[in-house]
Amino acid sequence: MPTAPNNMPNLLSAIESPADVRRLSVDQLPALCADIRAFLIESLSRNPGHFASGMGAVELTVALHYVFNTPYDRIVWDVGHQAYPHKLLTGRRDAFARGNRRLDGISGFPTPAESEYDTFSAGHASNSISAALGMALASSLKGESPRRNVVAVIGDASISGGLAFEGLNNAANTPNNLLIILNDNDMSIDANVGSLNSHLARLTTSQGYNNFRYKAYRTLRDLNIVNERRKGAIMRFNNSLKSLIHRSQNIFEGLNIRYFGPFDGNDVASVVRVLSDIKDMDGPRILHLHTVKGKGYAPAEANPAAWHAPGRFDPATGRREEEAPATDGRMKYQDVFGHTLLELARQDSSIVAVTAAMASGTSVSIMQREMPHRVFDVGISEGHAVTFAGGLAKDGMRPFVAIYSSFLQRAYDHIIHDVALPGLPVTFCIDRAGIVGEDGPTHHGAFDVAYLRTVPGLTIAAPRDEHWLRRLMHTAATSSEGPMAIRYPRGKGRMDGGWDCPLQPVSIGRGERLRDGSEASVLTLGTIAAEAAAAIDSLEQKGHSIAHYDMVFAKPLDDEIMHEVAAKGLPVITVEDGIANGGMGSAVAEWLADHGYSLPVRRVGLPDAFIPQGTPAQLAALCGTDAAGIERAIAETINRQH
Amino acid sequence: MPTAPNNMPNLLSAIESPADVRRLSVDQLPALCADIRAFLIESLSRNPGHFASGMGAVELTVALHYVFNTPYDRIVWDVGHQAYPHKLLTGRRDAFARGNRRLDGISGFPTPAESEYDTFSAGHASNSISAALGMALASSLKGESPRRNVVAVIGDASISGGLAFEGLNNAANTPNNLLIILNDNDMSIDANVGSLNSHLARLTTSQGYNNFRYKAYRTLRDLNIVNERRKGAIMRFNNSLKSLIHRSQNIFEGLNIRYFGPFDGNDVASVVRVLSDIKDMDGPRILHLHTVKGKGYAPAEANPAAWHAPGRFDPATGRREEEAPATDGRMKYQDVFGHTLLELARQDSSIVAVTAAMASGTSVSIMQREMPHRVFDVGISEGHAVTFAGGLAKDGMRPFVAIYSSFLQRAYDHIIHDVALPGLPVTFCIDRAGIVGEDGPTHHGAFDVAYLRTVPGLTIAAPRDEHWLRRLMHTAATSSEGPMAIRYPRGKGRMDGGWDCPLQPVSIGRGERLRDGSEASVLTLGTIAAEAAAAIDSLEQKGHSIAHYDMVFAKPLDDEIMHEVAAKGLPVITVEDGIANGGMGSAVAEWLADHGYSLPVRRVGLPDAFIPQGTPAQLAALCGTDAAGIERAIAETINRQH
Repeated sequence: MPTAPNNMPNLLSAIESPADVRRLSVDQLPALCADIRAFLIESLSRNPGHFASGMGAVELTVALHYVFNTPYDRIVWDVGHQAYPHKLLTGRRDAFARGNRRLDGISGFPTPAESEYDTFSAGHASNSISAALGMALASSLKGESPRRNVVAVIGDASISGGLAFEGLNNAANTPNNLLIILNDNDMSIDANVGSLNSHLARLTTSQGYNNFRYKAYRTLRDLNIVNERRKGAIMRFNNSLKSLIHRSQNIFEGLNIRYFGPFDGNDVASVVRVLSDIKDMDGPRILHLHTVKGKGYAPAEANPAAWHAPGRFDPATGRREEEAPATDGRMKYQDVFGHTLLELARQDSSIVAVTAAMASGTSVSIMQREMPHRVFDVGISEGHAVTFAGGLAKDGMRPFVAIYSSFLQRAYDHIIHDVALPGLPVTFCIDRAGIVGEDGPTHHGAFDVAYLRTVPGLTIAAPRDEHWLRRLMHTAATSSEGPMAIRYPRGKGRMDGGWDCPLQPVSIGRGERLRDGSEASVLTLGTIAAEAAAAIDSLEQKGHSIAHYDMVFAKPLDDEIMHEVAAKGLPVITVEDGIANGGMGSAVAEWLADHGYSLPVRRVGLPDAFIPQGTPAQLAALCGTDAAGIERAIAETINRQH
Repeated sequence: MPTAPNNMPNLLSAIESPADVRRLSVDQLPALCADIRAFLIESLSRNPGHFASGMGAVELTVALHYVFNTPYDRIVWDVGHQAYPHKLLTGRRDAFARGNRRLDGISGFPTPAESEYDTFSAGHASNSISAALGMALASSLKGESPRRNVVAVIGDASISGGLAFEGLNNAANTPNNLLIILNDNDMSIDANVGSLNSHLARLTTSQGYNNFRYKAYRTLRDLNIVNERRKGAIMRFNNSLKSLIHRSQNIFEGLNIRYFGPFDGNDVASVVRVLSDIKDMDGPRILHLHTVKGKGYAPAEANPAAWHAPGRFDPATGRREEEAPATDGRMKYQDVFGHTLLELARQDSSIVAVTAAMASGTSVSIMQREMPHRVFDVGISEGHAVTFAGGLAKDGMRPFVAIYSSFLQRAYDHIIHDVALPGLPVTFCIDRAGIVGEDGPTHHGAFDVAYLRTVPGLTIAAPRDEHWLRRLMHTAATSSEGPMAIRYPRGKGRMDGGWDCPLQPVSIGRGERLRDGSEASVLTLGTIAAEAAAAIDSLEQKGHSIAHYDMVFAKPLDDEIMHEVAAKGLPVITVEDGIANGGMGSAVAEWLADHGYSLPVRRVGLPDAFIPQGTPAQLAALCGTDAAGIERAIAETINRQH
């Protein structure tokens, strides 16, 4: 186990809680920021995590804990990528170095169960304003004194999500003292998308005016001419002034949220000053800070997208391990998807792709490079992505919507109402399905099969290998059976250089018997077939005989296989890398009940619980979905029969 | 069956399709509008439906079909409440009079399966911009000629939804010629909520300027001085002018969407003129029309909320049947909820309520009248409602979130990520669960138990009567078991004047045996217990003996009851008013499999299909979830055993 770095710098090493930060002078804060950066570089070079976002938010984090009385005052981080500096200042410095994103270590995202400084779940984007508004109103309903300040910190990508807009719209309309900090690094995981972004860019050009207005306010205040009550009128005057001297429309002031900025968010003294000034103002306010993603580490500043989550790297040279040539020919599932999508799109001009701020993460970027006009990256807006795809499909396109499993949860209603009800030919390519590993409970793709199985008319499939992924995509591209979902996991496939194969359609609702056996029938869905096969191999070596079926489709189930399995009368073990509650195994139990069969069914899958972070292997072992766990489940089921 | 009204006016009676509208002169259009209004009043007074929204949209609808070449050009209605005039003009006048919202009649919402003029599903709000953008881009990708115009028509309430913002944000950023019509009647089902609404109100004040700008453009065009290419520069100049002469911030122009308006949307000639003028302009545009909800019928203009869906009424007097005194003492479930919520809130100051534009529809209004500061109507933003409730709960409140079942689908991810993961004490009060009747497939609360059952740590309950609803709410208010969902149906309860009862908690996860029996075990969830009891009564009269258990909780299942049922070894029939696929019956099948029991299980519930409109009784008969259907299922199951 790695130990804490031995070159621990002076200021950071003395910080056990934000109270220690508040004991420093403002002059000492730049040194603390430098210490945090050095610590992050050293630690993350060995123990990978999200890098560039946190580096950009160092000054903002220090300033927030310096000015606000945390944890009494609430900081709500939107998406946790930026929250590592916050973890270092809130009693988790050593735990971070020891076990960031590890099983039984600390989470890579703010996690209320982990620390009282982590106020809210922060794995899915755009929720901070709504949650913070709730906290601000709770405090005011309770009549707490002193006033509890609540600060939402949201990035320029997250603020384009519909949930953030709903939050803004309500924050503007409800009496509250919420402070929203827009951490604008002009860069989401991929390049930022959407009109709001160009609006933010235009706001920058008004810096001169805003500085003027802000300084005017400070001068009046310092001269004791202005108080809180009179400030409103002065600010309104300033707004009129603004519309006189420049034409940029400020969407936030359009929503009646007082706007301050943009300021340099990497100048800690300046951020401390402006936070102190606006901290006690009444009413909702937004502070717009410009920060540099990857700030303070040249390789990351030069290529912030690559340094979002760079993996291990050499701190001295900035060489990332990922840049090393692959040692095997295995391809990531996302890349098999990406190459196959491009291949299909070359053959059929009606094929288009839609993704939500994840062109690289889903490898839709492969098609995007060749056919940019047929790939739509809609930004962080999964609901829009699905409804938009419905509109495309309605008028003759065949959209492939590539979204991570856990983020597609945002679009459940849109799948039902805007795609399945009208029966439109949209294909959902659900990446990161099943256990994803170190990103933890907010990111595991646990629920998709269970919640999609409720949707009438939606076909749900999962390939057991790269070839099946290609064939299922081809099938979806040519099917007339309405919408289809294809789920596949994070990470690499199993085929060493042989991922390519002819594109032949498969029969919808048809699985495959992989081997016959006389003691039990194992039914698997997706790539977990390999773990099940290993378990069966092991049991065969112990003298057992187990049948194995790859169902391929969770919906519709293969009637032929099901009748074969039922006729055997052997105990059934279902195996899937998704929540067992309502999943494929549940469909099998339903089918048997509906057809009047009474066979023992053992369902292996993810438990009815939120699964922590850890390596995929650790978590599969924990859930009993690795080969050993599957073998155990099969053996128990057989033994129960004897 | 009622026949078409015999006082059919002249112009409307000759309209078989929009092509007939386009053959009229502009001067004839006001008369056509009057005919439509008379027809709507006569027809809806007998055969109830949505009234006030359509009345306000008559001129807009006529003008759209007059100016645009429908169905080649696409009109995408956002929420179908306003689309009755559209149905009358598109070949469904007689069908409307005969069977609006009836089984085998026409849907109350635009429905693509029903007509080529209905371009998209329109039961859930805020989807029109995203869907229309998809259609516009599909047309441009296909290089269609002539250009296919796509028009999204969205109300001032719908545009406050996050999905609409995501659509706007992307519409602004993608090259397209989308026309968005903001049908602003300043009134959603309840009063409009949110800052965007006050922004819209302010825009009105800029009418003088906009009229000036628009007239300047028309003059230049008529003088042949301006063409499409030069118009951009002139419009930009006008925008600068605008920021000089008035201070209202235009959020749409902030998003780079060209804004026209506001205009009087009830002046048909004026709407025709402006639509003709802006129809062929390039780029995304928004046309802001003011309309009067209920326009042309004085009682509806005076009280548009009550006339949203007024039920039957006397066209001459405007007296609504609903205003008549109730003939029995039975109370709607929503009112039992509303009164109980207020009662609980009086006892516990931490109880607050959140609803999404449905304060009246959910009867949260009962608490709102007494405690306005503790009731938050967040407008059409179900995702925000849930995340906001998470924030409230995080800091000590006990939010009750009242949302219709089918609309709560929008918040699936928010329930998982922002409430269940942190284990916050939020209670979801799910109204309109199960079959809702005439509103049809977009509104049935079919999926909630199935999709909520996937959520770790969420308790799911359904009361079988008004007393249980009260007890479950009291239990939720005092429980320390994390979040809880309580589902209950549309319409009245069964207790004649006796809905009130002492507020005593129930044990979470404990059901109740209602009667014992020796041939089968019937397990029910929720108010459908009454239909099951009737079925069992009938079977008992035929000499059978059937046990009946009210499970009360779909999650966790009552282990004690389940062991009792399993020990009996009798066939099990599960009965629920929700989708069988993944529902309570599925949970029962899972439980039996997990515990090694092999009993026959027959699941009675809604089918794996979208259920049409009709009366609740008709639809229950169709789905086999009425007493006769349940009796049939029980009898078949018993007979299969003999």
